[in-house]
Amino acid sequence: MPSYTPPTRDMAFVLHEVLRAQEADIPGYDALDAETTAAILEEGGRFASEVFQPLNQVGDREGCRLENGVVRTPTGFRDAFDQLRDGGWTTLDCDEDYGGQGMPHLMGTAMGEIFAASNMALNMYHGLTHGAYSAIRAHGTEAQKRKWLPKMVSCEWTGTMNLTEPHAGTDLGLMRTKAEPQEDGSYRITGTKIFISAGEHDLAENIVHLVLAKIPGGPDGVKGISLFIVPKVLVNDDGSLGARNAVNVGNIEEKMGIHGNATCVMNYDGATGYLLGEEHKGLRAMFTMMNEARLAVGVQGLAQAEAAYQNAVAYTRERLQGRAVTGPENPEGPADPIIVHPDVRRVLMEGKSFIEGARALTFWAAELIDRSERMGDAEAEALVSLLIPVIKGVQTDRGFETAVQAQQLYGGHGYIEEHGMSQFARDARIAMIYEGANGIQALDLVGRKLAADGGRPMMAFFEMVKGFIKENESDDALNAEFLEPLKSASKDLQAAATYFLQSGMKAPNNALAGAYDFMHLFGHVAIGLMWAKMAKAARAALDEGRGDPAFYETKLATGRFYMARRLPETGALRARIESGAEPVMALAAEAF
Amino acid sequence: MPSYTPPTRDMAFVLHEVLRAQEADIPGYDALDAETTAAILEEGGRFASEVFQPLNQVGDREGCRLENGVVRTPTGFRDAFDQLRDGGWTTLDCDEDYGGQGMPHLMGTAMGEIFAASNMALNMYHGLTHGAYSAIRAHGTEAQKRKWLPKMVSCEWTGTMNLTEPHAGTDLGLMRTKAEPQEDGSYRITGTKIFISAGEHDLAENIVHLVLAKIPGGPDGVKGISLFIVPKVLVNDDGSLGARNAVNVGNIEEKMGIHGNATCVMNYDGATGYLLGEEHKGLRAMFTMMNEARLAVGVQGLAQAEAAYQNAVAYTRERLQGRAVTGPENPEGPADPIIVHPDVRRVLMEGKSFIEGARALTFWAAELIDRSERMGDAEAEALVSLLIPVIKGVQTDRGFETAVQAQQLYGGHGYIEEHGMSQFARDARIAMIYEGANGIQALDLVGRKLAADGGRPMMAFFEMVKGFIKENESDDALNAEFLEPLKSASKDLQAAATYFLQSGMKAPNNALAGAYDFMHLFGHVAIGLMWAKMAKAARAALDEGRGDPAFYETKLATGRFYMARRLPETGALRARIESGAEPVMALAAEAF
Repeated sequence: MPSYTPPTRDMAFVLHEVLRAQEADIPGYDALDAETTAAILEEGGRFASEVFQPLNQVGDREGCRLENGVVRTPTGFRDAFDQLRDGGWTTLDCDEDYGGQGMPHLMGTAMGEIFAASNMALNMYHGLTHGAYSAIRAHGTEAQKRKWLPKMVSCEWTGTMNLTEPHAGTDLGLMRTKAEPQEDGSYRITGTKIFISAGEHDLAENIVHLVLAKIPGGPDGVKGISLFIVPKVLVNDDGSLGARNAVNVGNIEEKMGIHGNATCVMNYDGATGYLLGEEHKGLRAMFTMMNEARLAVGVQGLAQAEAAYQNAVAYTRERLQGRAVTGPENPEGPADPIIVHPDVRRVLMEGKSFIEGARALTFWAAELIDRSERMGDAEAEALVSLLIPVIKGVQTDRGFETAVQAQQLYGGHGYIEEHGMSQFARDARIAMIYEGANGIQALDLVGRKLAADGGRPMMAFFEMVKGFIKENESDDALNAEFLEPLKSASKDLQAAATYFLQSGMKAPNNALAGAYDFMHLFGHVAIGLMWAKMAKAARAALDEGRGDPAFYETKLATGRFYMARRLPETGALRARIESGAEPVMALAAEAF
Repeated sequence: MPSYTPPTRDMAFVLHEVLRAQEADIPGYDALDAETTAAILEEGGRFASEVFQPLNQVGDREGCRLENGVVRTPTGFRDAFDQLRDGGWTTLDCDEDYGGQGMPHLMGTAMGEIFAASNMALNMYHGLTHGAYSAIRAHGTEAQKRKWLPKMVSCEWTGTMNLTEPHAGTDLGLMRTKAEPQEDGSYRITGTKIFISAGEHDLAENIVHLVLAKIPGGPDGVKGISLFIVPKVLVNDDGSLGARNAVNVGNIEEKMGIHGNATCVMNYDGATGYLLGEEHKGLRAMFTMMNEARLAVGVQGLAQAEAAYQNAVAYTRERLQGRAVTGPENPEGPADPIIVHPDVRRVLMEGKSFIEGARALTFWAAELIDRSERMGDAEAEALVSLLIPVIKGVQTDRGFETAVQAQQLYGGHGYIEEHGMSQFARDARIAMIYEGANGIQALDLVGRKLAADGGRPMMAFFEMVKGFIKENESDDALNAEFLEPLKSASKDLQAAATYFLQSGMKAPNNALAGAYDFMHLFGHVAIGLMWAKMAKAARAALDEGRGDPAFYETKLATGRFYMARRLPETGALRARIESGAEPVMALAAEAF
């Protein structure tokens, strides 16, 4: 049976020693003192690891079942979701005006990691509700907010996002679902949506679908898409539940993983819907939430990696096979634990150094979102919009890779479902695909974010790296171990960006062919920057004699591994990028 | 529904234009003319794609069931296996003395790829039989060979390999299964073996288990392990089946993939076994077959990559989303096929260039095995023993990665089981684990093979690369596009080997910590060498005006991609290796 311990100590380090959240000038951050955040993360962590986590394998094994139009979630899910609701965990970072606790998004993100690591499929019912809540909060009328939000904040009603159709995934302009205006101001929604996570289930009395559809007569393509609120059960003016709406689950999909979450085909047969935001501006409205939604998926990659890594650590400490080449470390036993072997260590260090770097990057991005939302800080908004495709793409790719490598440490036992390692890999796999497949993240980064506002956000990032290096280069040890590798990696990133600028002008394919490598190159620099910051914080604590020195020494050693062993990959990524479109596009489509 | 077309044209290119098999001085190779090999591969390919492949998803969905001690394979498996047997496909590269056709291992390997790509789980029943056949052929007495081999060649009886026990995987010295000598010269085998592929099933009337066990009183550890033939049903002197032996399936495992193959817990309760080879030399006997067995697993990685790649190509040609940035390529349609997008091309080119390079490497290794076995060529034996861990480790890692990336091109549809892309990834995953997990391959390479015979095989490989470059560097285009990158990559490999030699002497962990990276670095150089050879052959055909120029131009473009986009990774791998053990081993085991 796999286990999971919330990494609250590491989270506290990022919150208080790296980001120094409480000192930030963001409204609400003054409440983020070490005691408060520890109390929340530890209590939430206890709940997640005691209630959510034990149901993770149950959900995988049983999956969801569709019976006479009703979806049954796995054994125990309903009770656990009730407890989540009753404990107020769904309200944490929601608006106080609608029953939320008003905590910063940073805290929601930290708790989100813990819930996703405990039971990704179960947590998605809440996660999607939060996304729908944010869209209504941003674009709804006051009356819509009063009607829908309080029940969604509490998760008495859950939410969904309906974008994809069988022939329209990435290219939403091809969408066919239509919304016909009615005399009472509502719309009749007709069409089929697929891949609707949490589209139907037995965890809540109502489901609030946010549905993209076209109003007949509107502009072609993505400019004619509007967003609608389409509840499963209609809601009367007094807030009570009314008649069943004409929306039904057509099927649930057999998937590689996240079996505990129902992925539905949804049929809208003239269902009643309410316009959210302006006509024909639905895509923009839906994508206001994109940073938040994509960060949450990046967190899923990180979370599955953490859960898989923790179990791999435990297994490699217990599993006795072979002897350390440097002499027995368990001389009384029949063999040494496999953690003594350098190649096992390599895998664990890769996992640990990725996870902790990615966590710092994630928390920083969540802080930038708070800064943008709570202070209207446009620079923070621009910077986080640049970072989000990197976080989503890199953390889900590397998260899956980490889960696969953790599974590998179990040998044959990792391939057997009983041990749960296969599930971490299978569940992590979806995060590379949904909320914009990672290839799309790379395109968003290179085709849109890199050039946004004349390249200013990208330049701001480079300045930030340079500034941090300059500020700290007098510290010789930090400089040699952290700043020099960071400088070199950042130079590769800059060279790649320059290459795109120059050769992409001539032929855009030169930029597009290197987009994926650029995303990963950027990821290395961003995680490298985080490690340099964490190293600085760890050294400060050691210098000041604060806390447990072993924690900080471990932090430094983990960072050194990342800088020495992972950052050199930037050179190869740069070389790939600079080889341009020619090798990639040389073949005709028929030649494959 | 996924499909599969045997890549016979590409196989012919490697056989006849790169390896020039028919001209090789290996006994039996004179029969490998283009017509004969094409007839075999095409007929076998038709059978595999028409009979094996349609059952691939059936096997995944149904899995094997254990009912009252009997394992039921999925619907259709039994009939397909009968057809395999009746068509004589199991006898292809077996010894004519025992009913085989006596073809080279090279042909068995090519057909093996096709069968593994069509239905990996079903093909394993035959593959394991072939492994057991080879062990008995190499170590059995003449009487044993007469008794067991003919029925195994025909697959009337299938075979298994029993190594692992719950507490003894990589470290076989911990094994507990015991073999007590009986008065009649047989042994009583008692113990439990796990992860026994094809351990019990309904495809054959008998199963010949090869079982590692310890004879009481023998030496400790791996030096006290002997190998036994333990049939499911005892065989009378006249060859007829006798009484049921005391061996039973205890359970079958729920696995991530290869559901159609029964992975069994086998209980031996005083079963009758017959010593194969010498007492206490069982491990050596089992490992005589290691090159063949590990090559076969490397082929599985390649095969799943090929099958997944083919389906991805078809999907990306059909799926319409978005427009080429260079202008619509399907202006009449609602959108362009996604194959127009550079990031989709990148994935396809990575798949294609890996697959074709790996196939050439695989076939070369099979030729070396033939050269070793049919001519007693010790240099060929040493070289292939060096290459095998690279082939097994790299081709299964990259094979899985290719399957995962092919799945990615399907977007959300790739995560749905219906399309079959998840299965390719899940099936491919096991090849990284069994027959020696890939970390063990890396250790075998660096700890054993690299230093074998004073490093002579490694030096021979370097000389071969150097010789090929020297011989061809007057060809300017070949030189710039293929030989220069190969030279640079080979230099990285040499530097890494030198680093191991020098720093590994001081501290073996310096070598062990870089073993995995070395395996992949070696893989790049070996595949790079294959691409240089294929480029040379393609250019020769173009110069001579032989055959379809489009085929050879495609070959060159695919090779150029590998050299320009993949080979630069060797620099990063070298940097990782040269960072030594310190970053990897810095933490105490308790610090993770």
